[in-house]
Amino acid sequence: MSVEKWVYGYHEVAAAEDHLDGDWEAVRGLLGGKGANLGEMTRIGVPVPPGFTVTTRACNAYLATGEQFPSGMWDQELAAMKEVEEQSGKEFGAPANPLLVSCRSGAKFSMPGMMDTVLNIGLNDETVKGMVALTGDERFVYDAYRRLIQMFGSVVLGVSDQPFEHVIEETKTANGMKDDTELTADDWKAIAARFGEIIKEEAGIDFPQDPYVQLEMSTEAVFKSWNGKRAIDYRNAAGIDHDLGTAVNIVTMVFGNMGETSGTGVAFTRDPANGEKVLYGDYLMNAQGEDVVAGIRNTKPIAELEQDLPKAFSEFVDICARLEEHYKDMQDVEFTVEQSKLWMLQTRTGKRTAKSAVKLAVDMADEGLISREEALLRVTPDQVDALLHPQFDPVVKATKPLLAKGVNASPGAAVGQLYFDADTAERMAKEEGQDVIMIRPETRPDDVHGMLAAKGILTSRGGATSHAAVVARQFGIPAVVGCDELNIDLDDRSVMASGTLLREGDHVSVDGSTGEVFSGKIPTVHPRFEDQGDLIILLEWADEIAYQEGIRDLPEGSPTRGLQVWANADYPQDARRARAFGAKGIGLCRTEHMFFEDERLPIVQRMILSKDETERQTALDELLPFQRADFEGVFEAMDGLPVIIRLIDPPLHEFLPSFEDLLVDVTQLRMDAKRVGTDAGRTLLSDTLSAKEKMLGEVEGMRESNPMMGLRGIRLGIILPGLIEMQVTAIFEAACNQALKGVDVHPEIMIPLTGHVNELNAVQPKLEKAALRIMREKGIEINYKFGTMIEIPRAALTADQVAETAQFFSYGTNDLTQMTFGYSRDDAEAKFLLEYVEQGILPENPFQALDQEGVGKLVAMGVELGRRTRPDLEVGICGEHGGEPSSIEFCHRAGLNYVSCSPFRVPIARLAAAHAAIKRPALVV
Amino acid sequence: MSVEKWVYGYHEVAAAEDHLDGDWEAVRGLLGGKGANLGEMTRIGVPVPPGFTVTTRACNAYLATGEQFPSGMWDQELAAMKEVEEQSGKEFGAPANPLLVSCRSGAKFSMPGMMDTVLNIGLNDETVKGMVALTGDERFVYDAYRRLIQMFGSVVLGVSDQPFEHVIEETKTANGMKDDTELTADDWKAIAARFGEIIKEEAGIDFPQDPYVQLEMSTEAVFKSWNGKRAIDYRNAAGIDHDLGTAVNIVTMVFGNMGETSGTGVAFTRDPANGEKVLYGDYLMNAQGEDVVAGIRNTKPIAELEQDLPKAFSEFVDICARLEEHYKDMQDVEFTVEQSKLWMLQTRTGKRTAKSAVKLAVDMADEGLISREEALLRVTPDQVDALLHPQFDPVVKATKPLLAKGVNASPGAAVGQLYFDADTAERMAKEEGQDVIMIRPETRPDDVHGMLAAKGILTSRGGATSHAAVVARQFGIPAVVGCDELNIDLDDRSVMASGTLLREGDHVSVDGSTGEVFSGKIPTVHPRFEDQGDLIILLEWADEIAYQEGIRDLPEGSPTRGLQVWANADYPQDARRARAFGAKGIGLCRTEHMFFEDERLPIVQRMILSKDETERQTALDELLPFQRADFEGVFEAMDGLPVIIRLIDPPLHEFLPSFEDLLVDVTQLRMDAKRVGTDAGRTLLSDTLSAKEKMLGEVEGMRESNPMMGLRGIRLGIILPGLIEMQVTAIFEAACNQALKGVDVHPEIMIPLTGHVNELNAVQPKLEKAALRIMREKGIEINYKFGTMIEIPRAALTADQVAETAQFFSYGTNDLTQMTFGYSRDDAEAKFLLEYVEQGILPENPFQALDQEGVGKLVAMGVELGRRTRPDLEVGICGEHGGEPSSIEFCHRAGLNYVSCSPFRVPIARLAAAHAAIKRPALVV
Repeated sequence: MSVEKWVYGYHEVAAAEDHLDGDWEAVRGLLGGKGANLGEMTRIGVPVPPGFTVTTRACNAYLATGEQFPSGMWDQELAAMKEVEEQSGKEFGAPANPLLVSCRSGAKFSMPGMMDTVLNIGLNDETVKGMVALTGDERFVYDAYRRLIQMFGSVVLGVSDQPFEHVIEETKTANGMKDDTELTADDWKAIAARFGEIIKEEAGIDFPQDPYVQLEMSTEAVFKSWNGKRAIDYRNAAGIDHDLGTAVNIVTMVFGNMGETSGTGVAFTRDPANGEKVLYGDYLMNAQGEDVVAGIRNTKPIAELEQDLPKAFSEFVDICARLEEHYKDMQDVEFTVEQSKLWMLQTRTGKRTAKSAVKLAVDMADEGLISREEALLRVTPDQVDALLHPQFDPVVKATKPLLAKGVNASPGAAVGQLYFDADTAERMAKEEGQDVIMIRPETRPDDVHGMLAAKGILTSRGGATSHAAVVARQFGIPAVVGCDELNIDLDDRSVMASGTLLREGDHVSVDGSTGEVFSGKIPTVHPRFEDQGDLIILLEWADEIAYQEGIRDLPEGSPTRGLQVWANADYPQDARRARAFGAKGIGLCRTEHMFFEDERLPIVQRMILSKDETERQTALDELLPFQRADFEGVFEAMDGLPVIIRLIDPPLHEFLPSFEDLLVDVTQLRMDAKRVGTDAGRTLLSDTLSAKEKMLGEVEGMRESNPMMGLRGIRLGIILPGLIEMQVTAIFEAACNQALKGVDVHPEIMIPLTGHVNELNAVQPKLEKAALRIMREKGIEINYKFGTMIEIPRAALTADQVAETAQFFSYGTNDLTQMTFGYSRDDAEAKFLLEYVEQGILPENPFQALDQEGVGKLVAMGVELGRRTRPDLEVGICGEHGGEPSSIEFCHRAGLNYVSCSPFRVPIARLAAAHAAIKRPALVV
Repeated sequence: MSVEKWVYGYHEVAAAEDHLDGDWEAVRGLLGGKGANLGEMTRIGVPVPPGFTVTTRACNAYLATGEQFPSGMWDQELAAMKEVEEQSGKEFGAPANPLLVSCRSGAKFSMPGMMDTVLNIGLNDETVKGMVALTGDERFVYDAYRRLIQMFGSVVLGVSDQPFEHVIEETKTANGMKDDTELTADDWKAIAARFGEIIKEEAGIDFPQDPYVQLEMSTEAVFKSWNGKRAIDYRNAAGIDHDLGTAVNIVTMVFGNMGETSGTGVAFTRDPANGEKVLYGDYLMNAQGEDVVAGIRNTKPIAELEQDLPKAFSEFVDICARLEEHYKDMQDVEFTVEQSKLWMLQTRTGKRTAKSAVKLAVDMADEGLISREEALLRVTPDQVDALLHPQFDPVVKATKPLLAKGVNASPGAAVGQLYFDADTAERMAKEEGQDVIMIRPETRPDDVHGMLAAKGILTSRGGATSHAAVVARQFGIPAVVGCDELNIDLDDRSVMASGTLLREGDHVSVDGSTGEVFSGKIPTVHPRFEDQGDLIILLEWADEIAYQEGIRDLPEGSPTRGLQVWANADYPQDARRARAFGAKGIGLCRTEHMFFEDERLPIVQRMILSKDETERQTALDELLPFQRADFEGVFEAMDGLPVIIRLIDPPLHEFLPSFEDLLVDVTQLRMDAKRVGTDAGRTLLSDTLSAKEKMLGEVEGMRESNPMMGLRGIRLGIILPGLIEMQVTAIFEAACNQALKGVDVHPEIMIPLTGHVNELNAVQPKLEKAALRIMREKGIEINYKFGTMIEIPRAALTADQVAETAQFFSYGTNDLTQMTFGYSRDDAEAKFLLEYVEQGILPENPFQALDQEGVGKLVAMGVELGRRTRPDLEVGICGEHGGEPSSIEFCHRAGLNYVSCSPFRVPIARLAAAHAAIKRPALVV
């Protein structure tokens, strides 16, 4: 029976790879990340200190068999040490030219600080002397020796650090010293001797002088550390399997502090802040690695190494280029020069800022280092997001105490003065030119004018899909919502949080990307999309990849082109912005927001409260020109691209004063009326009262127990056909007017809230008739479609029937999520949903990331059934999820034609769509 | 080429049946219902006047070819006349012994009064004389003659009746007569002559003296009448195909008014009112058929015919028995005795009352006439319904003017005095012993005590699933809801409708079966289930058929037993009632209704408003004994049967005062506080105000935009675990206590509103632990299950996951319908749903009959997915639909184990379940 190979020298990594059929993941699993990487560097000829790896399988075998080295392992380790001796020209335990090694853990996945290390193995009372002779630096050698004893004590023997540190403190105090650096060679020598005594006292054994015993016990200690409490806790938190085991790396020690031809440093192969192609890093001459990190001495920029050690520098530059070439990415490396000889100690993919991620990706693709697909995968949607929103200066922000933390509803940083109502906020912004932060317990549609005038929005109630959040994202205004630590006193116009009282006009800084709120002003940086050439290039690549024939694996007959990104935009300026961000159409233009504008709302209210058809028609006739003008602007902005316009959706009582306010007014007026003295006063009051009572009656008649599921959308269209006919008239008049001017218009009329195909059958033919009439009147034909939102579960369940009438589907996944879960989002997020996510009952807030198992099942069913009836059915999504990467990936798989999201999320969605396409490559041709 | 057979003599019906492979439906299609039936009677030897049928195909051919008789038809008709002459021994057109025939339409489906008839064909100026000689009754013969001329004029020639009637009126006026019966033979003779002149004047032709011309023109007229306006309108309304055509029946005239050995009558073969096995009918000697119906002369009971015409009577009794034997059902027959010879003119299935339908079905099955399956199919669920509720005396009711009409929400008749609020209603019922009708615009949970004390409930708002309706059905209280003609003035304590003003204490009569409301008292009849032996027997048969192995065609591995009927019952008395009605379990015992009772509500409110855990636990501890006692009663009542108890479902704010009331109170108190003069007054007011303000704040904090989709059900259980733990403790203590007394308890704990299996995973294990603890403490083991409602679409979509934890499913199709349609039932029914049904957008109110295409798809998916995980999963339905026949049939097909409905609907559901089983017989063994 041949014995398993438990030990791989770094020069043998190729053998491991052969053994594992070139499966690099399996190699990393067997050798751990560190071992595999050092082996890989060795393989490509990068100078790595000689060493070897004991496999993770050896660790698992050791742990499984009651802490026995598996058969043959120790012999293999001894043999490997012989090879290391040969490679290094040094000898383990030989005082003349002693080989020193480190023993470190190295698991498949990095577990920083969670696993143990012993350095300087090989030192003992004899080899110490040889080292002193060799280096001429007694202080360094005894410091190294005491470090070995201390680490061995704590890592291998479980002796606490405390008695060791106590000895060092004692020595310093006795000599009136403050810092370790002041300790002399003799001090360290004495300390090392004291450390040996501590080992004896605490662990009951002598510190082992035999280097092989040191090695054996250290190897065991690393194995055992896999099941240490810290390691288990970390793995639980990070979701790492407990049965992977750790490898053990035994590596020749090299020292950067061996005189003036030695040094050590860390570097990035390119600039991690901006992505420029220059080496970026620091080094110290005659120093150890930890000195660079500790910042005790001032480091030098890496470029100066050329002067200090020209040969080593030139080799280093070569190696960096080679590593980038090999790993196809920017590397973060550690190196040591020991007496002019360069050693590379580590290489790994370098962390980077969002800006540099984009530049690196584009540059490397241009250099031919990576493919465009790979370049796209190198950038995360979050990084694109970060690039598009104002950011606080991180240095200043770190110094500010947190005032409160809420839901990060709309990203970006905003600084401004607090105002407690929409009118004041708008006035201060427009008339006083202030930067305004509007703060409210929660917002309503009639707060929108104030929100639009504000730089930032802050609420104490509501979640990530509350009104405030949705509007803020729509308009790219930073917002923190549901921040319940804020105690808002609207009467006093003040807010109390973390013991600080802020009054109207006080400055606050709101970080919508993190949910943090600070008092006072923090400086911000404002990136602009148009200025970001690299991002623009990258997203062009994204579009090419996301939207091409055969990019998806869909049933036969399904449309095979990929996923486009469209935008939700209600106004011409939104549409222009969306187009600038790369939107390929408008997936949702809401017609009712326009109703809230100052000069329109009274007409809308007259329309709602009209006593008869004539009065209603008069009001509708007055609204028509407003709507037409809005649509004309949107069509013009989207020349050549489709525009989906949704007919009115919300219940009409949203356009009337609130029931509660009226109830209070009426109650007060009734009491006043009883008390008033004069006849004139009585008359006056009685007129006001009866007007208010009338309005109260109207509003009460329209109130609903659950307005979300009440008289809205197409139901309204059936009960009140004149309103949507006016809207369709306005749309087609606008479209025809623009078409006559040469604009290429593609209106698609979307009917909301369909639950039964008969609802569509009841309204759509009438609307189409109106459309045809207008085109006839205007003497021009335009391309148009009539379709429906799919946001009621029943519509998805019966999509085959719905598609008989609807020419396109647009999933309203906000409402579909509400109905499918039975969650009223206004109530749920505040009352239990965040708690659910916290308790792990739901993996994520389903209003942020589409619930693929439940809601997604309905989406997929609807697509499949709909296309069964109408194979070329256009299907998109226009809920909040249209801008969320995991949901976009789902939409790609489900075979949707587009996702539509807020203009500000278009770039993010474009990247996410490309990611989806790359991750699930073409299977249908 | 052989010519098609267009004409069938009645003796040839067997030939038609052979021709059509014994397909009786096709025979009826070819010969029409009347022709087929007369042929069938002829075939079994019943004396039917000789005659024949011209087929519907002939009619269609005639109409399709521009009103040409198809080739050969008229020759066949002439040949058939020859046969009739032979059979009758009379001769068509021969004055000596003239054959007279009628010509009537007869389509496949009865179209009463919509088609045309000509009688007495064959009379002319010559044959009239022969008839006079033959009968010796000149008056009768000339009356018959003028009838022929008049009918021929109107039916064949399109002359209006008006000039004919005018002549008769003139004659009577001239002779000072009032009634047709006073006209003499000479008068009729003169009138017949005048009628001939009218024909000439109006139609421009002489009345045809040739009997064959009469016959030909009458046949054509009947053919044409198929496309007459009346007939088309009727078919459109009744949904009858327009291409069926009508047959033409030519039948020998027989006369019951040919002297003292002649007579005519109608009879049922059994008593159609109570089902007794006695002949039931009337006859008149020496009279025509229409005289019996017209009620001009007093008819005699059929039994007396034995004296008048013993031989004919004995033959009639025989024939009735033979017809029942042949048609396997009670028959409604018409007969004529012409000069001692009995002729049967018609037989059809007799209409019957609900009571008699049941008795007939049971008797006929006992007699072996029909199978038990057939017996069950003879009774409709509506008939069972009618048998169980008080009914108004129909005679008195017909005399009362209707006050208003609303939604027939809970069946039955109720009479009582009007009261406008729950407290007064309860007081008047309990203290004054009055029969109370509680009237409200709509009801709320805190009105329930008044509703329970009332005999009937009346609301002006809400639909068939409004609170009032649901509670009323639950407790079997007649109710009319959504009766918007009622103008209720709560302040004035009066209601105005149809111009009548009713005040508190006035009497009204409410018919919950029809939705009618009358002012004043109408006497009622009260049937009792226990007294209805036949119904009890029939429903036992129903249970045997509905619930047996292999009764359903389900996928392999599915449970193959049929559908049981369980009941929804919250209190012991409900459970006893349900059991008496034959429920095989409790499918839904709601625990929260108990919270509204007077002595409990304050504790519940304390629990909700508690500041800390201790306070909350104290309140919960106080509630526990109440809940336990309720459950003990229910378990005792259901000894041996399963009881599903649902943990608390509604949002907690339902147990607190209404926000609007508090807002008004607080507003008033605040104004008062500003004005009050004395310090003492101020203190008093300020205490009241701050208490009210506190409550207002609490209620406001709990308010939800869409409470239907808010913090309720299992969500409450997760946020507030103590409450459901108390409930589970109470259930298991009650179950153990009863088990220790020897009661066979089967509690099943149902968790409402699950949307994600993780919700169940978060609460169910804790509850099971509590259950085990109590069983250990009590020292007894009981059978129990934990399961969930499926009422959230997501739960149905992911039922495979949910079934990993849930041991049973119960579909809450009320909520499932709400979520699947996105309809808030409180809002939808009032605002648009009834309109939808009226416009035909929805075929039915989906809250009454389960929407099988949409909601049903989710139900079926959930069953299939759930049983994939847990093949023996118990699945039932406990929504309102559980008592609705079409929904029950769906549940049978979907493979449910039971339907659960209100106790009063249990008998109906038992019959419906049997119908479902019979209609979809066993396919899986």
